[in-house]
Amino acid sequence: MNIIDIINKKRTNNPLNYEELNYVVSHYLNGEILDCQMSSLLMAIVINGMNDEEIFNLTDIMLNSGDIIDLSKIKGIKVDKHSTGGVGDKTTLVLVPLVASCGVNVAKMSGRSLGHTGGTIDKLESISGFNVNLQNEEFVKQVNQIGCALVSQTANLAPADKKIYALRDMTATVESIPLIATSIMSKKLASGVDKIVIDVKVGHAAFMKNLEDAKTLAQLMVKIGQKYSKETICVLTNMEEPLGNNIGNSLEVLESIDTLNNHGPEDLTELVITLASLMVSIGKNISIDDAKKQVIENLQNGKAFEKFKELVAAQNGDINNIPVSEHIVSIKSQKTGFITKIDAYKLGMIERNMNTKFTENKTLIDPTVGFSLNKKVGDYVLENEEIIKVYLNDNNINVKEILDCFEINNSLENELPLIYDIIK
Amino acid sequence: MNIIDIINKKRTNNPLNYEELNYVVSHYLNGEILDCQMSSLLMAIVINGMNDEEIFNLTDIMLNSGDIIDLSKIKGIKVDKHSTGGVGDKTTLVLVPLVASCGVNVAKMSGRSLGHTGGTIDKLESISGFNVNLQNEEFVKQVNQIGCALVSQTANLAPADKKIYALRDMTATVESIPLIATSIMSKKLASGVDKIVIDVKVGHAAFMKNLEDAKTLAQLMVKIGQKYSKETICVLTNMEEPLGNNIGNSLEVLESIDTLNNHGPEDLTELVITLASLMVSIGKNISIDDAKKQVIENLQNGKAFEKFKELVAAQNGDINNIPVSEHIVSIKSQKTGFITKIDAYKLGMIERNMNTKFTENKTLIDPTVGFSLNKKVGDYVLENEEIIKVYLNDNNINVKEILDCFEINNSLENELPLIYDIIK
Repeated sequence: MNIIDIINKKRTNNPLNYEELNYVVSHYLNGEILDCQMSSLLMAIVINGMNDEEIFNLTDIMLNSGDIIDLSKIKGIKVDKHSTGGVGDKTTLVLVPLVASCGVNVAKMSGRSLGHTGGTIDKLESISGFNVNLQNEEFVKQVNQIGCALVSQTANLAPADKKIYALRDMTATVESIPLIATSIMSKKLASGVDKIVIDVKVGHAAFMKNLEDAKTLAQLMVKIGQKYSKETICVLTNMEEPLGNNIGNSLEVLESIDTLNNHGPEDLTELVITLASLMVSIGKNISIDDAKKQVIENLQNGKAFEKFKELVAAQNGDINNIPVSEHIVSIKSQKTGFITKIDAYKLGMIERNMNTKFTENKTLIDPTVGFSLNKKVGDYVLENEEIIKVYLNDNNINVKEILDCFEINNSLENELPLIYDIIK
Repeated sequence: MNIIDIINKKRTNNPLNYEELNYVVSHYLNGEILDCQMSSLLMAIVINGMNDEEIFNLTDIMLNSGDIIDLSKIKGIKVDKHSTGGVGDKTTLVLVPLVASCGVNVAKMSGRSLGHTGGTIDKLESISGFNVNLQNEEFVKQVNQIGCALVSQTANLAPADKKIYALRDMTATVESIPLIATSIMSKKLASGVDKIVIDVKVGHAAFMKNLEDAKTLAQLMVKIGQKYSKETICVLTNMEEPLGNNIGNSLEVLESIDTLNNHGPEDLTELVITLASLMVSIGKNISIDDAKKQVIENLQNGKAFEKFKELVAAQNGDINNIPVSEHIVSIKSQKTGFITKIDAYKLGMIERNMNTKFTENKTLIDPTVGFSLNKKVGDYVLENEEIIKVYLNDNNINVKEILDCFEINNSLENELPLIYDIIK
């Protein structure tokens, strides 16, 4: 077996078998297959696609390329949640304590920001002292004690996916539904949970740009989950504008706290209730309606926020110390009218550029900067009314560039729903 | 402009413009575009193809990536010949002096062996003392003095092609008609000649496996030549069995000398007469028939061989010193019947493995080893009759592996022609 023959096989649109995919992944991990060879194969996969058998096999090989977390010592059904990534997406911060407060254990591993999208781990680290690096034993112990834990993914979880993902990012081979599905599912399956709810973001600020592709991806992930007897539900949600009002690490944690106290933004609250209801329903084997009642109750009676405080305390965070920049610039609309579009992708990129500093040795993230939207799509704005606040540090901002992210018109277009579809 | 956007454009099957292709080639040459990015783009090109404008632009960019040889000091029309590569293909060694003996100047740059195919420069170096590295001035001077020179391609001739070709070889992105056409034509156009005859090999031991692909490639190269007002003629020839009887550097030189003396193998002689007639016809602006008469005459009257002796002497070679191994093994047929197939690809690979030694610092080639076929396709062979001679050195041979290259049957199939088509 050799890599040239394997690339040629895929190039001429023939499916690869288990042994060939296994050869590729193991020899790429040990360095015998070069980056240039792997990226040539990846492009052939992106263009020619993969059939279901190839997708199942590749998922299996990647999930077995590193550690498989043993969560058997956690009682009950472990339900995980994943988001394909968006702008202002702080859902996990609200969901984990909310679902745990309803009696479903959540042992959650999260990632850092990627491209224009934020990362839960970066957000958590804006809480002074918060420890995202628990050993497996501590992780399991904490879930058993308080019902939830939120940690950074260990380095050795699906390392093949990690190495391949980094290469895809550099070689424009990201946009492949089979590769996205195997990447997400290999990590989720290796993380040891029983059931999975996936928020598949759709829109210009998501990796899936249209509903059709998002549905294909969702159906594929549901099928992979079934193959491993791990119930998987995908919720297709709108990512045409930022989720909630805040973008930026500290600002997003503060908005999550508002939401846990039942006075968060409407869209974020609706999404959190939908996802939490699904998680509680499959975690406790009760109807969605019953689950939804509990979820709403725990947002109203303060139990969800209590659980969040417990979580932060257990991981050494100081909930009273979530610094936000005091250097605030208010940007005002130059026009009167309805907001018909907000370019979340661009806002996400501007925010990443504001908060990230690349030094010689490492990447420094400033959690105190970001945006707070005063207006969302569908809102009416007056000339000279504040449209967005910028929390700055030592950065310069380009006001025009930010204002250009907003489209203002005399009439309102049909509003898109927040939740497009649920696929299970 | 950035490489990710360019790869994405080609991945989604949109043509790249001149500026984008130029960005790719120049930034790949200076190292700013990485191998992994280039190979991902190359695979997208291999699968999605290129339109004529892209092909013309890429050829132009590659031919201008290095030196362009100035042959203006050589009088008359300079005609070049190129072969896409085969097994036992020593045509150049016969053609160059033969065409020069007919009064057409041939300033020829050649390459080394690649994959299973031999290289003219390696063959010439089996002549003791032969100097393949002439400076441009010496090269021009020699052509003006004796009508021909045969040298190794300079390092800086289309360096972009050189770097891209090496990557394609490693990443299974060789088999693309647009990339093969631009690679060949950028080198030929940079070498400063006026007219080009290309021997496009077709068959299992060639890079073009079928006649249809070979025709497409030929038409493309003719079109590129027209674009630069350099008349280009492609001859599509059979590469289902080795050309001539000998494979191996010294052995091929000796067979070339036989052919120059008009007692070479039938197929090699036919091919040489066809190609030489075309070259003499376009070099002197005379009819093919008139050119053919001169060519045949000079093979019969010894003038072609005289020119070869002049060429060897001018480049310091000793024509009486072309060493061949004395360790000869005769392999006999185990069956009686007609030879219906000879696996030239496999024989080529076995010969490469016999003659090439990779040491830490360099690749050593032993010119004295090789094969001499006693029988060709269509011949009748008796059990125990010699079918092939092996010229060995310190190598072990696998007799069965060599015998397996021959298919022997009771009846003869329809013989394929040597010359399939001429495209101009």
